[in-house]
Amino acid sequence: MVEDRDEPTIIEPTDAVIRLTATCICGSDLWPYRGAYDVDRQVMGHEYVGVVEAIGSEVATVKVGDFVVGSFFASDNTCEICRAGYQSHCVHRVLMGLIGTQSDRARIPLADGTLVATPAQPDADLIPSLLAASDVLGTGWFAAVAAEAGPGKTVAVVGDGAVGLLAVLAAKQLGAQRIIAFSRHADRQKLAREFGATDIIEERGDDGVAKLKDLTNGLGAHSVVEAVGTQEAMMQAIRATRPGGHVGFVGVSHDVSIPGDLLFGSGVHLHGGPAPVRRFLPELIELIWDRTIEPGKVFDLTLPIERAAEGYRAMDERRAIKVLLTPTDNND
Amino acid sequence: MVEDRDEPTIIEPTDAVIRLTATCICGSDLWPYRGAYDVDRQVMGHEYVGVVEAIGSEVATVKVGDFVVGSFFASDNTCEICRAGYQSHCVHRVLMGLIGTQSDRARIPLADGTLVATPAQPDADLIPSLLAASDVLGTGWFAAVAAEAGPGKTVAVVGDGAVGLLAVLAAKQLGAQRIIAFSRHADRQKLAREFGATDIIEERGDDGVAKLKDLTNGLGAHSVVEAVGTQEAMMQAIRATRPGGHVGFVGVSHDVSIPGDLLFGSGVHLHGGPAPVRRFLPELIELIWDRTIEPGKVFDLTLPIERAAEGYRAMDERRAIKVLLTPTDNND
Repeated sequence: MVEDRDEPTIIEPTDAVIRLTATCICGSDLWPYRGAYDVDRQVMGHEYVGVVEAIGSEVATVKVGDFVVGSFFASDNTCEICRAGYQSHCVHRVLMGLIGTQSDRARIPLADGTLVATPAQPDADLIPSLLAASDVLGTGWFAAVAAEAGPGKTVAVVGDGAVGLLAVLAAKQLGAQRIIAFSRHADRQKLAREFGATDIIEERGDDGVAKLKDLTNGLGAHSVVEAVGTQEAMMQAIRATRPGGHVGFVGVSHDVSIPGDLLFGSGVHLHGGPAPVRRFLPELIELIWDRTIEPGKVFDLTLPIERAAEGYRAMDERRAIKVLLTPTDNND
Repeated sequence: MVEDRDEPTIIEPTDAVIRLTATCICGSDLWPYRGAYDVDRQVMGHEYVGVVEAIGSEVATVKVGDFVVGSFFASDNTCEICRAGYQSHCVHRVLMGLIGTQSDRARIPLADGTLVATPAQPDADLIPSLLAASDVLGTGWFAAVAAEAGPGKTVAVVGDGAVGLLAVLAAKQLGAQRIIAFSRHADRQKLAREFGATDIIEERGDDGVAKLKDLTNGLGAHSVVEAVGTQEAMMQAIRATRPGGHVGFVGVSHDVSIPGDLLFGSGVHLHGGPAPVRRFLPELIELIWDRTIEPGKVFDLTLPIERAAEGYRAMDERRAIKVLLTPTDNND
């Protein structure tokens, strides 16, 4: 349901208000959409780019008129946890989903810590990629970093949604030698290859692991990204990783339980959780600005925000990888 | 039950036979001792130091007469997994517990990859420490490395057995700034402080975590070692770690199950399993040889091997931290 909400205004002196240029539907929004857990009027949407319209008296690093990219957790970027690169766990974090960005304007708390301005107003073709940086690219990138993708490494990616596909792109940028994508959808396989996948495995679960072992001298991959959040995907990721290798998991966990003896015996490293997108934003914006990467390719459907419901349906039924929503006043 | 077994001999050209100088009882031996799982005549013991008595035709790096330290997994030390530092997952590994070293002599497979010779015959006072290097020190050291203990870090250790205590020693050597040991036994607290603990917490579980948060600005430790293997200890370790921090777990998992949502939300790194002791042996032997560290202090009871049963009882009842067993022909 799309409804009118109170216009956002500056409440705290560290707030900014931005006019949204575009927002989108996140895979994690699909869980409440599907009724997987009880959500009473949760405001959906936590990915956003836009132009600063107002700033509080203490905001110093962004100014009115700046084009900015944020991330799904507002963070002060100064606490000990932020300085260690874990802004998604900032001691003052605010989950943007609770505020909601699938509207025309949004109040952004902790604006100095949260928002990163682009070098200038972006060309229109860059907007989808900048929006991707706000969440799915930042998340896929973190997953690849958590999996320690890099030169000489074989990286496997479980999950062919936008995050998984962008983890492929990240692994490529990070210099991975070989990138194996698990996917059984032709359109996603195609995009995976465009982003840098060298091999595709259609099998899942134990069969998928067996196929991957065949490709890696029986050892498994050095780095595996888990971008689904189910038990099957997590088990597949751990089993696909060689001893001493790294699993980066970013799929929001749904009834996942990791057997201690399996993990003990596997000898893998496990790291993940909500991505500290803010850590990577300056670098990602630069790569997009230079047109080195085009993560916006994951958006294969664009709808005005009033038709968000159609977008949820298309993603849920896998007819769309990711839906870009344009706000009303941009469609006038 | 202590029984006579066939004398070990060279079977493969890569074998060595060593005369044991000392062996000991490992905490992990206590699980089958307690009947935690079905063990039909398992040969106990997998920690050992001794003198090489015979070598196979292909053995090149140790020679007859060398004093050697091994580890609980025999490994080739040349495969891709070994070269990455994960010798406990060597593609040709042999678990020494299956061969058994709680006797006078032992056949060591893959001798070149498994054994490390000391610079000369050791003084008697070094033997307990060299024996500790073979397993408990190597394991505690790996746990501290897996938890990324180092300069500027606050390290917490869950478990005050020999491995936990030696993880404290390892954290100190690795340069940790603050080391917090969880322990409620006065004798173990004392040894923890001797090894470098700066703080002791007697509480366990949620109370222990709350106490630790009080000591760390509410953030948790950077590095936490889990050296028990129970559900409570694993949960305590994860909850005691700050977001972005590292848990190194080496307690053999017994009915442990890690909730995916807890791990996702925690933002910690998790790494562990059977320690690749071989990776650390050259360094550990050097530190012992130079008398920089004295891990042998964990042995607070020495018995002739015929009285091993008493030793199991003493450790099981927490009357002893760790029992050193001396072979028969050394007691003649």
